[in-house]
Amino acid sequence: MRIRLIGEGKTKGLQLRALEADYKARIERFTDVVVEEAPPDRAATGSSRGGSGEKVSSAERRLLEKVSGSYKVFLDAGGREWTSEEFARWLGGQALRGTRELAFLVGGPQGFSAAFKKQADLLLALSRMTLTRDWARALLLEQIYRGFTILRGYPYAK
Amino acid sequence: MRIRLIGEGKTKGLQLRALEADYKARIERFTDVVVEEAPPDRAATGSSRGGSGEKVSSAERRLLEKVSGSYKVFLDAGGREWTSEEFARWLGGQALRGTRELAFLVGGPQGFSAAFKKQADLLLALSRMTLTRDWARALLLEQIYRGFTILRGYPYAK
Repeated sequence: MRIRLIGEGKTKGLQLRALEADYKARIERFTDVVVEEAPPDRAATGSSRGGSGEKVSSAERRLLEKVSGSYKVFLDAGGREWTSEEFARWLGGQALRGTRELAFLVGGPQGFSAAFKKQADLLLALSRMTLTRDWARALLLEQIYRGFTILRGYPYAK
Repeated sequence: MRIRLIGEGKTKGLQLRALEADYKARIERFTDVVVEEAPPDRAATGSSRGGSGEKVSSAERRLLEKVSGSYKVFLDAGGREWTSEEFARWLGGQALRGTRELAFLVGGPQGFSAAFKKQADLLLALSRMTLTRDWARALLLEQIYRGFTILRGYPYAK
């Protein structure tokens, strides 16, 4: 099962970039993982994004084309909240079900349009608190790595 | 209002240490902030810690002495979950109420004993997911900084 993380824009903070690279390398011990940067959605405005948009933007359409055929998880503060153990169980379930690719999408500062969110197989929240996309990417990779260590019964810090 | 963060043990990851220092410096633009490292609780075991302990350990007693007189917030995955806006409003409310010091305590790998948790004025969860103490400290400082930017109406990345 391939893990794919697509984030809008470039991770700016040096430390969070380093953390991303670190956890990506750790996930590679368990499975294939790809981290991609999608061009930021320049057309995004308050009205067309941030949960209220009625229409999928052109940048969102391009994202959808990239992940057609994948199981699509969009990060959204209003999405489902799991403990790390529940998330790990879900990861394991996807692998058992024969999912070829899990695509995690992290939006830009305005979030995703409501119309776009309807295309997700799962809306996932890492926290009720607002996370910058840089934090969200790094923490998501950390939780994916943690998920694999839980599934394999590896020791890992709490 | 002084912000005090006391974490058990030393932050190990270089990047998370750097993030901590970065957000601490940013919070200093708004208010006094102190970050302290408490010695890890060597006596902690699965039975005496991790939410099931009936007795406050000696390390926990030393922590309590440090923060007597402060408003005590313990980080706990089972604690209250707020959005960043709700957290900011709470921060602002504490300042208005004349709280002299807000003390945030981040536990070690085993968490705090149930008896110790009863001493908290607030149990706060950053996420339902398990965070290492290093992640919890850095993310907490980020959210405190974010809280001040929300209260002051400063622009800050989402």
